[in-house]
Formats: sequence, structure tokens, C-alpha cells
Amino acid sequence: MAILDDATVAEALTRLAWTREGDELVKVVRRDRFAGALAFVNAVGALAEAADHHPDIDIRWDTVTLRLTTHHAGGLTRKDLDLAAAIDALG
Amino acid sequence: MAILDDATVAEALTRLAWTREGDELVKVVRRDRFAGALAFVNAVGALAEAADHHPDIDIRWDTVTLRLTTHHAGGLTRKDLDLAAAIDALG
Repeated sequence: MAILDDATVAEALTRLAWTREGDELVKVVRRDRFAGALAFVNAVGALAEAADHHPDIDIRWDTVTLRLTTHHAGGLTRKDLDLAAAIDALG
Repeated sequence: MAILDDATVAEALTRLAWTREGDELVKVVRRDRFAGALAFVNAVGALAEAADHHPDIDIRWDTVTLRLTTHHAGGLTRKDLDLAAAIDALG
């Protein structure tokens, strides 16, 4: 899968609730206590399994940090943008 | 809740599958793919909710890293040792 150029990523980010940090897309979500955070992680997990593409996931009590990249491609690809959009659609 | 002295923590660690890093207990668990890692996180989450004590949880594909400390006490307490043992009992 092709690595996307910076302009393509920047344009996509205008429609995504993610930020870029180097070769990763990052999203920080706060939910209602730990239970809400874990429910969000399970929803993300279902999308990740469906896409066969898995973000790094950090849980800190009520806060979840997601990091997306395409390791085997060595950068950001369409798979990252597609999963980022699907996760945003969780609300 | 009282912070435990170093000797007490060291003695407890002889019976726990955790290591100490500063004021944290750390456990790294590898499961079968992402689905196995997420199932483990949910099992840990149930124990954490029952104990009202929550580790930091990092998921990297099939690998879960847990970090336990008692933030409001400023160190390791009996709550950490008890939850560490309960998580070990998950197998």
C-alpha cells in the first residue's frame, strides 16, 4: 500500500478529528470514567478487526489515546485515513 | 492507604509475575493476536472495576502492557499488590 504524500494527508485531516505526529495519526478521546473508555476501546477494536488494521491503544482511566500508522509501509496510507474516519463516526 | 516500603514490595514480587519500575508495577502479556489482547484487557477491566483501581493499559497488536500504582498515595500500596495478584490469576 502506497505511502500518502503530506498534502494528501493534510487535506484529509481537515475532515478528521485526528492530528498528525510524524508518521502517525493521533486521536485522544475522553469518555465517562473507565467503563466508558473501555467500551470505546471495544468499539474501536471491532472496527480494527473488520479493517484488519490496528491502532496502538493507550487507556488512562477515562482517556484513550489512539495512534495509527501503517508499519509495513513505513508511513501513512489510505488504510489509516479510512480507519480514522470510521473511528470518528463512532462519535 | 499507606505506601509500602521497598522490602515489602520486593517480598511480594517473589510471588507475582510483575516487575517494579520506580513507583509502578509493570506486567507485559502477549496473547493470540489483537483479539486475544483485547479479551485480556476486558478481563483486566472487570477486575479493575471490582477493585475500583485501574492500571494504565497499553495495547500493541497482540501485546498488552499494564502499569499499576496508587496515584493519590504517591506510590505502591496494598491495592496494587492485590490487583496484581488478581490479574496474575487470570493466567
